[in-house]
Amino acid sequence: MTSLQLSAKEEMVERFLDAAARGDMIQVSTMLSQSPSLINQTGYSGWSALMLGARNGHYPVVEALLSHGCDKFSVNSSSQTAYDIAKFWGHRHISNLLGHTEDRCQRVLPGADLHQQENYFSRETLDRLSAKRTDEGWLEDKQSDPNTVYLLFSNCSPMVSSPLEDRNAGGENQLCRFRYETVKDLLQKPATVLIFLGVERRKEPSAQTVDGVREPPAWFAINTDEDTAELLKRCREKNCCFPKTLNRDLLKFSEEEAGVVAQARSVLAWHSRYSFCPTCGSSTRSMEGGYKRSCLNSDCRSLKGVHNTCYPRVDPVVIMLVIHPDGNQCLLGRKNIFPVGMFSCLAGFIEPGETLEEAVRREVEEESGVKVGPVQYISCQPWPMPSSLMIGCLSVAISTDIKVDEKEIEEARWFPRQQVIDSFRGTRPAFTVPPRQTIAHQLVRHWIGMTSNL
Amino acid sequence: MTSLQLSAKEEMVERFLDAAARGDMIQVSTMLSQSPSLINQTGYSGWSALMLGARNGHYPVVEALLSHGCDKFSVNSSSQTAYDIAKFWGHRHISNLLGHTEDRCQRVLPGADLHQQENYFSRETLDRLSAKRTDEGWLEDKQSDPNTVYLLFSNCSPMVSSPLEDRNAGGENQLCRFRYETVKDLLQKPATVLIFLGVERRKEPSAQTVDGVREPPAWFAINTDEDTAELLKRCREKNCCFPKTLNRDLLKFSEEEAGVVAQARSVLAWHSRYSFCPTCGSSTRSMEGGYKRSCLNSDCRSLKGVHNTCYPRVDPVVIMLVIHPDGNQCLLGRKNIFPVGMFSCLAGFIEPGETLEEAVRREVEEESGVKVGPVQYISCQPWPMPSSLMIGCLSVAISTDIKVDEKEIEEARWFPRQQVIDSFRGTRPAFTVPPRQTIAHQLVRHWIGMTSNL
Ligand SMILES: [Zn+2]
Ligand SMILES: [Zn+2]
Repeated sequence: MTSLQLSAKEEMVERFLDAAARGDMIQVSTMLSQSPSLINQTGYSGWSALMLGARNGHYPVVEALLSHGCDKFSVNSSSQTAYDIAKFWGHRHISNLLGHTEDRCQRVLPGADLHQQENYFSRETLDRLSAKRTDEGWLEDKQSDPNTVYLLFSNCSPMVSSPLEDRNAGGENQLCRFRYETVKDLLQKPATVLIFLGVERRKEPSAQTVDGVREPPAWFAINTDEDTAELLKRCREKNCCFPKTLNRDLLKFSEEEAGVVAQARSVLAWHSRYSFCPTCGSSTRSMEGGYKRSCLNSDCRSLKGVHNTCYPRVDPVVIMLVIHPDGNQCLLGRKNIFPVGMFSCLAGFIEPGETLEEAVRREVEEESGVKVGPVQYISCQPWPMPSSLMIGCLSVAISTDIKVDEKEIEEARWFPRQQVIDSFRGTRPAFTVPPRQTIAHQLVRHWIGMTSNL
Repeated sequence: MTSLQLSAKEEMVERFLDAAARGDMIQVSTMLSQSPSLINQTGYSGWSALMLGARNGHYPVVEALLSHGCDKFSVNSSSQTAYDIAKFWGHRHISNLLGHTEDRCQRVLPGADLHQQENYFSRETLDRLSAKRTDEGWLEDKQSDPNTVYLLFSNCSPMVSSPLEDRNAGGENQLCRFRYETVKDLLQKPATVLIFLGVERRKEPSAQTVDGVREPPAWFAINTDEDTAELLKRCREKNCCFPKTLNRDLLKFSEEEAGVVAQARSVLAWHSRYSFCPTCGSSTRSMEGGYKRSCLNSDCRSLKGVHNTCYPRVDPVVIMLVIHPDGNQCLLGRKNIFPVGMFSCLAGFIEPGETLEEAVRREVEEESGVKVGPVQYISCQPWPMPSSLMIGCLSVAISTDIKVDEKEIEEARWFPRQQVIDSFRGTRPAFTVPPRQTIAHQLVRHWIGMTSNL
C-alpha cells in the first residue's frame, strides 16, 4: 500500500466521521453500505463515528450505527465509551440507548447487586494514578503546578473549615485547600510527609487533554509537625481548625471529601506509626508518592524482594448483623465506650489464615455465644481510624442463647424487628442507633429493607 | 419456695428428661400435658429433653417435642444444639427433622449462597480459643501437656513427611507432629517463636468435657533457627523435609492440614518480619500466645492505647474474573513469572481508603485497560505467602479494548467460554489453568458453572 492509498483511505474515514458528527444520516448510510468496514474506524484521539454522534446528540446516527453492529464498548484515548460521552453531554435519550448496561449486567451476572449501597468514606473522587507514583519527574512537576490542590494535616487530623453555627449542631466540615505557593516551605522540612492522592477524575471528554495541554489537577496531602496555630494563619477562611474529636468530626464531610479523607488519613497514619523498619529497626524513608517506605540500612532483608513491611497496612474487619433463625429479630451489642443507649452490630478483626465467613462465625460466638450458619457479604467501608476495611455481612444464627464475653462487650440482645424499625424512625426508640455514616447503620437498614419499607 | 419444693421440681424435670432419653413416648406426652413448662427444662450439663431424645435416636420423642413448640436452637454446656448431637451420633432422620436449617436460612436470608465454595487453606480445623491467649497459666499448662501437638517450622517452612514416590508426582504432604518431650529444649531457646494455634474442635458431645476431665488437645507451632538436618532427626518418619519450593509444596496438604498451615505460617511470617517496633525501632517481644508483639521501650507510643503495629498483619487482595459484556468471554492475564502458557485471574492489593469493589475496578483498568461495572463477591481464601486474604469476585466489563500495563502483566486476553471449558477439561487446552487449590481456578469454574455443567 502506497502512502497515497493510505491518504485516500484516511480521507474517507475523515469524511465518514465528519458525517456522523454533523448528523448527516444520508451520507453515513451511503458510505456504510459502500464500505462496511468504516463502522469502527477512529480518527483524532480515537474518536469513532458512534462517539461523535453521541457527542453531538444525533440519535438517528447512533441508532443506525448500532443496528449495523457497531462496537459500543470501544474507548477513545481518554478512555471514554460513547455511553460516557453521551451521559456527560446530557443526551439522555442516547445514553439510555447505549446504556442498558444494567439489563446487560444483570443477564451476565444474575447474582450481582447492581444498586449496591454506597457507604460513607467509599466514594473515589480522585483517580489514584498509581503508575505515576514511581515517576519522580512527573510528581515533581505536579508539586509545583499552580493548579495542584494541597490538603494540610497535623497529627493526622485534616484542617477543615466548619460552619459558623455551633460545631456540635451537625453542620458540614469542608477540607481547606491550598496552592503550592502557600505550602512550599512546608515541603522542604524533613518532618513533613507528602502523599500523592491522585488527580481529579476527568469529566470533560475533551480532545485537548490528549496532548497534555491541560491535565486535571493533582491532589496531595501534607502532614506536618508545625505549630497548628501558625498553620491556621495560612488559610483565608475564618472558621478553620484541626478537629480533636476525630471519630465525630471525620463523619461530617460531604461524600466526595470523605473519600479523600479516608485515603489520606489511612496513609498518613501508617507513616506516623511505621517510620522504623520492622525487620531491622533502622530508619526508613518515604518513597513512591508516599505509598512505600524503604529501609535505610543497605543490608536489610526488606530490600531484597517485595515485602509487606514497606507498604501501607489495611486491616480487614468483619462487621455483621446476625439474624435470629425466626427471621424477625436481630442481634445487637454494646461496648462500654458507646454513647449511652446505643446498640450496634458486632465486629472484629479478621485473623491470619481466616476467611471472612469464619471470622464472622468466630467473632459472634466469642462475643455473644451465638452460633452462626450462612454468611452473606453485603458491602464494605474504608474506616480511616487508622486504616481498617469494614467488610459488612448479614448472617443467620443457628443457636440463640446469649452468653456475653464481658471483656469484649457489655451487653448483647435480640431486638424484635418492630423495635428496630421504631428506633430507626425515632418514633418510639428502644435504643440509640449508630450514625448513618457507619456501615452498621446501613446493614440494619438493609435487613429491614429486605422485607419492609422503612 | 422452700428447698423441698425445689427438689420436687428438680425431680420432676429429671423424670421428664429420663423419659425422653429412654424414648418413653407415653410418659413424655403425659408429663407435658400436665406441666407444659417442662418442655425446655435442662438437667445435667444443660441437656434438654430434645437433646437427649436426639442423642439416643428417639424420632417420635423429638417429633412430639417439636410439635409442642420446643426451642430447637438452645445449646447445652458444650455449645451443642440437638441438631449437632443427632448429626454426631449418626441419627440422620432426626438431624434432617431438626435441620431444615437450609430452608430456614434461605427464608431468612434469600440472597445467601448456602453452598459456598470451600477454598483450599480455608478450613478451620482448630478452635482458636482466642480468649485463652491472655491466660498465661492455661497456656503454660497446655505447653507441657502430653496430648499437645507441636508443629515444627524452620524459616517459616513446615516440617512435612512426603510420600515415598517422586515428590514431584503430586503426592500429599503431611505435617510432622511432635509431643512436648521431643521439642521442650527448643522452647527454652531465645530465637524460638511459639504460636498457640487452638484446640481440636470438640466432636464428642460428652458430659465429661464439662468438668475439664479431658479437654481436646491443644496445637502449637514452633519456628526455630536450629540446624534443619538436626531437626529432621527428631522425627521418626523417614521422608521428612522442610520444603524449599513453598509456593508448590504448601498446596499439597489435605484440606484439614492446609487450614492449620495457613494460620501458622501467616503468624510466623509476621514474627520473622516484625521483630522491631515500627514506631520507635526498639526490639519487641512476643506475647499472648504469639498474637501480639510488644515494644520493649517503655516510653514508646505503641504502648499507649491499641495500635495495629502490635498485631499480625493480614493483607486484603482482590482477585477477579472479568466477564465480557456479551457474557461469553472472560478476561485472563499472565505475569512473566507464571509457568509457560498459564493464564489466570487479575489480582491486586486493596489500598488504604478503598472498597473492594473500587479496588477491582482500579486494578483491572490499571493492568488491562478494561473498565469494569458491577462487582459481585463470591468467596475468599487465606493465602499464607506471607499473609494475604484473597477476596474473590466476578465482575462485568463495560469496555472491551485491552491495553496491558507491561510493568504488571505480560499479556491479557478475552477467552471464549468454550476455550475456557476445553482448557479446564484438558481436552483441547487453549491455555494452562491455575491449580485447583487457587481461588482463581475456583472463580473460573464458578463462572462456567453458572450457565453450564463442567
Ligand atoms: Zn530494615
Ligand atoms: Zn516502640
